[in-house]
This record gives sequence, structure tokens and C-alpha cells, in this order.
Amino acid sequence: MKIIKRVVDVRKETKTLRKDGRTVGLVPTMGYFHDGHLSLMRKAKEECGKVVVSIFVNPTQFGPGEDLKKYPRNFRRDCKLAEREGADYIFSPSAEEMYKPGYGTFVEVETLSKIMCGRTRLGHFRGVCTVVLKLFNIVNPHRAYFGEKDYQQLVIIKKMVEDLNLNLEIKSCPIIREKDGLALSSRNKYLSGEERKNAVILYKCLETAQEMISSGERNLEKVKSCVLERLSKNRFVKKVDYFDFRNTATLEEVKKIKKAPDEILAATAAWVGNTRLVDNKIIKI
Amino acid sequence: MKIIKRVVDVRKETKTLRKDGRTVGLVPTMGYFHDGHLSLMRKAKEECGKVVVSIFVNPTQFGPGEDLKKYPRNFRRDCKLAEREGADYIFSPSAEEMYKPGYGTFVEVETLSKIMCGRTRLGHFRGVCTVVLKLFNIVNPHRAYFGEKDYQQLVIIKKMVEDLNLNLEIKSCPIIREKDGLALSSRNKYLSGEERKNAVILYKCLETAQEMISSGERNLEKVKSCVLERLSKNRFVKKVDYFDFRNTATLEEVKKIKKAPDEILAATAAWVGNTRLVDNKIIKI
Repeated sequence: MKIIKRVVDVRKETKTLRKDGRTVGLVPTMGYFHDGHLSLMRKAKEECGKVVVSIFVNPTQFGPGEDLKKYPRNFRRDCKLAEREGADYIFSPSAEEMYKPGYGTFVEVETLSKIMCGRTRLGHFRGVCTVVLKLFNIVNPHRAYFGEKDYQQLVIIKKMVEDLNLNLEIKSCPIIREKDGLALSSRNKYLSGEERKNAVILYKCLETAQEMISSGERNLEKVKSCVLERLSKNRFVKKVDYFDFRNTATLEEVKKIKKAPDEILAATAAWVGNTRLVDNKIIKI
Repeated sequence: MKIIKRVVDVRKETKTLRKDGRTVGLVPTMGYFHDGHLSLMRKAKEECGKVVVSIFVNPTQFGPGEDLKKYPRNFRRDCKLAEREGADYIFSPSAEEMYKPGYGTFVEVETLSKIMCGRTRLGHFRGVCTVVLKLFNIVNPHRAYFGEKDYQQLVIIKKMVEDLNLNLEIKSCPIIREKDGLALSSRNKYLSGEERKNAVILYKCLETAQEMISSGERNLEKVKSCVLERLSKNRFVKKVDYFDFRNTATLEEVKKIKKAPDEILAATAAWVGNTRLVDNKIIKI
């Protein structure tokens, strides 16, 4: 496995790979790998001849008060884990390599970046789209892999690819969960023991929503207020940013199930202590 | 020369060309060709194996009160002229082909799009960057050709290419002028006989600036007020949007020539009757 820091060098590698007829898969990450990341690498390795894993804690997707500085990092461990999954390249540029002094260009899926997580994390998805587009242009992969845990991000990136006529395929992997149901996230590291135990309530509420809908409830506002009440009663849940029902493809809000679609997305973001967690579940109807 | 309307079709063509080792040049235009456009095609033909000329009057770069609807068009004549210059493909998509219902992704060089023409044409360069990036992704050229008449656009596109790590080369051609000095523009068609005669004043003012600076004037504010006074006295000039001196590479404003750079940009936008014209000149020092 090669470790590459410079844009020109990774570009040279993947250009040669493409010339030789190899399929290039890209797994863009911010590092500090858990099984969610590894499942993406595994899928990429199954489907592509060569796999590039990028590790870059992207400053432009963090807001002023957010956790850019303390975001967990462990480069050596990440390299070992990626190698074990069969990654062929780690691309880990510096912030200066990605954003030269005077950097000024940004990309935004304007229609989808102000809702859900975008309501509170201003500029977050603009930063995500910008860095992902840059990584696509640098690596020039045939396929890129994203986790379904950041479901809104996944939909936004697919929309960017479609709108900007990008010539690659976006693939996704399901959420990986701890035994009790908590979705894996690098940010779970921030949780204290008590917070960790209580954090599973996000998943429990998604399950409750599924159960209520399976039992015939069609008024999603009712489901929502029931779930919000439950969240509000947990003293470790400091704030709920949202608990929404959304169209799985367009992210349009769904308030009532009328003519049944096959599925809807239930998605939530909430603060457990000082840690903001997101989770979601595709609800079968 | 092939005329192509669909994204998938032009993509297929240039993919094959690249596989065959041909160099692909793109000349993005809004049609209604004059010698400025033709000079770009000529240069592209000299430097590239195959030349794609795109013709697309891009709605997203026109503001609400602007001339999208009346922008001059003559597709049949354009095709003849392009073929005469050796163009291999015309790519002329519909607006619906470029912007599907629900389109939502935009690109902006935020640092350069609010100055000069961006001060009055809000969103103009965001529309330009978006369509140009789309055309780059669709055609995937080795080189793309832009005129120096839209100097700010040229600098912005170069910056976008650098910032987003796009893998192509931007080339430019000098302004082509009428005998009296008026810069060629598709919008010159809007001018009445009297307006056309008076429109040359933009070029005359750029020449005056060059002369004053050549004669040793180093205070550019003085040059500017002299030129603005001259423009204000012409009764066909309804409004001057700007007459600026700018760094040719960064577009930073230059107010005084201190340690001499080799060159500065003099650039202006003004309304002659109901027609907004732009012109510029690289001033040698």
C-alpha cells in the first residue's frame, strides 16, 4: 500500500491505472476508522481493481464553533486497517495542499443543503461538496463509496454528480451499528460512559417510528411528537436538532403517508452531552 | 462536422477520441459568431486534433432583467462558420438537457465574482462557472479556449480550474476589434447607427489611459477621473458601471503604480444606449 501526500502524485498513479484498464475506486474519509469505513473499503475492493482511500479532515466543512481541532485522528492505525482491507493507496494531503492561500471556489447543492443538518450546520454541505468534488477531480475514480449513516450527504453528493455531469458512479454501504444499536461514528469517542449508554436512544426512537408505522399509524406528525417527547425525557439528550421523515430520494419532507411509497427515511440529529450525533433508518411501509 | 444535441452523445464521441490518443479542444460559446469566436476555433484547431465548439445561451448567467430572450442567435450561420474553421463537432444542447427539472448545484469563485462586472451582474459568474464546469465534465477536453474580451471571466475560470483541481488547460485569445477599435461582441448588434459610432469611446478611453501612463502618470485615480469625465460627456453613454485598474493575474485593484509591475489591466463596462458593453486593455508600463 502506497501512502501519498501530494495531488500531482496520486493523479499520476490513477492516470496510469486507468491507462492500464484498471477500475479505480475511491473511499473518501476523514480517518479514525471504524467498521463503517472498513465496510466501504471492503465493498470498493470487491468491485474495483484498485482502491484509493483518502484521509482528510476537511476544514471547510466545519463551522466556527465546531470540532475541527479535536476531531479524532490516528493515522498509523488507519493505515494498518486500510491495508488489511486491501486498500492500494492512502491519499492524505495537508490542508495547504488542498486549499492553497487565496483559495476561493465553492460548490453547493443549494436545494438540499439548507434542510436537516444544514439548518444548524451552516456551510457544512458546501464544504463537503467542495472537497468531494476536488477529490473526484484529483483521483478521477470510476466509483466512489459513501456511508448511509450520513444519508443527507449521500443524497447531496449523488445530486451534485448528476447536476454537474460528473462521470463516475456513487455507491453506498448500510450503517454499521454497535450491538445495542448505536450507529458507529468517529464522534462516539467523545461520549462519556453514561452518555454512551444513553446515546442508543436515537436508534431506539428510529425503531419506535418503524413500529408505529408498521402498526398502521399514517400521521407522521403524531409519530414525531411521540418520539420527540421520549427524547426530551432523557436527561443526556441536551437538544434535538431534528427528527424528520423524508423522501429517500429527494429528501422532501413527508408529513402524512397517503398513497404508500415503499419506504421513507426517518432521520435525526441530536446532542448527547456535548456531542452531536446523527442517525437514520429507512422505514419500510 | 457533426452536430450533437445530447450530453450522452458528445461524451461518447470524446471518450473514443481520447482512447484513440487524440487531443480534444473545447471552445465554449453562446453562438452568434464573430471573428473573436472564430479566432478561438482557429487556435484550437492549430493546437488540438479535434475541436468541439459548444453553442449554448446559458440561462443561469443572465439576471432577471437581462437580455436572455433577445440574445442574438443564428444557428445555421454559426454551423457554417465553425465548419469553415475546421470544427469537428458542434455541441448545442437545449436548456432542459443542461438543467433538468429540480436542478440545484452551483459553483462560484467567491473571491472574484463580486467585483467589476459582478457588482452589477449578480449571480452572473456563478452561472458562468456552473455551465463551464458542466461543459468541462461533459466534453472532457484537454484544452479549453476563452476570449480575453471577457477578461474577468477568463481569470475566474482559470481560478476555478486551479481551485477545483480540474485536469485541463485554459487557453486564451486576444480581443479582436473593428477598424475603429470597437471590441467585437455579439451584443454590438443591439446598437443603433449613432450608438455604434459612439461606442468606440470605450476603446478610446482605454487608449487614453495607456497614453497617460506611458507619459509617466503614476496616480491611477487621476487617470480614472480624467477618463470618467470624458465618458460622462458623451450623451450616448448612459451609465458607466466601472473603469478599473486591476492586477492582470489576481484582479486586485491597483490605485497607484509604485514598484512597476510590467503590466496592469484597464477594464471597463458601460451602457451605450440600452446596451451594456465591456472592454479592456493590458496596459504596458
